[in-house]
Amino acid sequence: MNSADLFGHIVKKHSFLCVGLDTETDKIPSFLLSEKDPVFEFNKRIIDSTHDYAVAYKPNIAFYECNGAKGWNSLEKTVGYIKENHPGILVIADAKRGDIGNTSKMYAKAFLENMPFDAITVAPYMGEDSVTPFLSYKEKWVIILALTSNKGADDFQYHTEDGTKLFERVLKVSQRWGNADNTMYVVGATRAEMLKDIRKIVPDHFLLVPGVGAQGGSLREVARFGLNSRCGLLVNSSRGIIFADNSKDFDLVAGQKAQEIQLEMEKYLSEKNIT
Amino acid sequence: MNSADLFGHIVKKHSFLCVGLDTETDKIPSFLLSEKDPVFEFNKRIIDSTHDYAVAYKPNIAFYECNGAKGWNSLEKTVGYIKENHPGILVIADAKRGDIGNTSKMYAKAFLENMPFDAITVAPYMGEDSVTPFLSYKEKWVIILALTSNKGADDFQYHTEDGTKLFERVLKVSQRWGNADNTMYVVGATRAEMLKDIRKIVPDHFLLVPGVGAQGGSLREVARFGLNSRCGLLVNSSRGIIFADNSKDFDLVAGQKAQEIQLEMEKYLSEKNIT
Repeated sequence: MNSADLFGHIVKKHSFLCVGLDTETDKIPSFLLSEKDPVFEFNKRIIDSTHDYAVAYKPNIAFYECNGAKGWNSLEKTVGYIKENHPGILVIADAKRGDIGNTSKMYAKAFLENMPFDAITVAPYMGEDSVTPFLSYKEKWVIILALTSNKGADDFQYHTEDGTKLFERVLKVSQRWGNADNTMYVVGATRAEMLKDIRKIVPDHFLLVPGVGAQGGSLREVARFGLNSRCGLLVNSSRGIIFADNSKDFDLVAGQKAQEIQLEMEKYLSEKNIT
Repeated sequence: MNSADLFGHIVKKHSFLCVGLDTETDKIPSFLLSEKDPVFEFNKRIIDSTHDYAVAYKPNIAFYECNGAKGWNSLEKTVGYIKENHPGILVIADAKRGDIGNTSKMYAKAFLENMPFDAITVAPYMGEDSVTPFLSYKEKWVIILALTSNKGADDFQYHTEDGTKLFERVLKVSQRWGNADNTMYVVGATRAEMLKDIRKIVPDHFLLVPGVGAQGGSLREVARFGLNSRCGLLVNSSRGIIFADNSKDFDLVAGQKAQEIQLEMEKYLSEKNIT
């Protein structure tokens, strides 16, 4: 998917919502546990009830890997289901991979070739050759960790050389590897005001903002500092949507939660004349 | 496995060799491709022929993930086979994972609980809470990326604040999270002379040195600067052993290659009076 398609989809749905499929088996409503593949059944119903409000889905790979080969099957079925039924939606593998070139190439193959993911999150610590193998796929995206929303972000991401913090260096250096049509950045929402400075370094790139909801970010602030003329934002919500309810109606409640966020997003897009 | 067991095994085998199981399907000898699970059959024969010379095996997870659920099965069988037949050998998941706390917890569960890996490599970019979930397992190890051996290491790992390079900060800060009995570090072998300075920061920790062989490091130099009184080194070789030959006798050749390295290691251990 290219950036024009993504922007078109955002305008059509008045939304820049990404729904995080952090599908923890222990939190799936009990009535689904008798299904052959409870994780896929859960995801399917979440997708059916939220797809009108979302422009992206983001399975968190850890939650599938911890179920072994079975989990990998649930993941493949989930991505396939989205792509088959909602081809306009961006599907992100939240995998945070990154290794030397020939290994990253294998990870790229796993997610962007063998599975139909449109994008994958990547950790930048190992530098250029750990990231570029993901950029060799046409109309696919690499989403590089820049500033994350967890407490541990303070340990290294603010390490400062000549006034440049590590996460700023990641934003600057990685622009030599790709461009705004194949690279996005993860930028943590608990520090929304920092988006203003980040936008000076990457005015055109899409930013994937995790953590609105359970991790405490404010959507208004994120939109205020992060939106650009082509939207340029994907804001993720996981637990606040998918685990909002665990009754038989969990999917309806998830749909309502997604719609609430979408309506708020519509307002911010409209204020920016993105309609 | 605790550090005393690991050291005991090193002394017994006169070896600190880790064999990297970067089992690329395209490179498996053709006569194995008719097997039901060629990747596992290949690994099994490599293990059978090299276990006398190795104290650790390190499957590179990317090479299994790129085969989807089937690859995951090959991985589970490989780890199970080593643990069942050679319980004294350390088995490392070269996964380079790392995410916010609740997600890292799932990765830890996948590798250290659901599969019997003894250790997992972790990327430090997201800081403390991305690493500590891996440390909550008794007698398991987290192996943190410090200095890697690829070209991209230059992009961020040398970013310097007040004279401290990022990889040095990783070595210093992460010592607050664990200790020399549950934490190791990845230190790239193409810069063996740097091991001298690194040993000043982490005198007691085990260092996992990738890249002797295909990536060009010198074992003599690594041993010279890296060995401590409890060995403190695991040196990896992957392609130089497992893909040294692709005839029917590939496993015998792999065993010879592993033995060559072990004999060289025996010399360096002996020079340090580790016998």
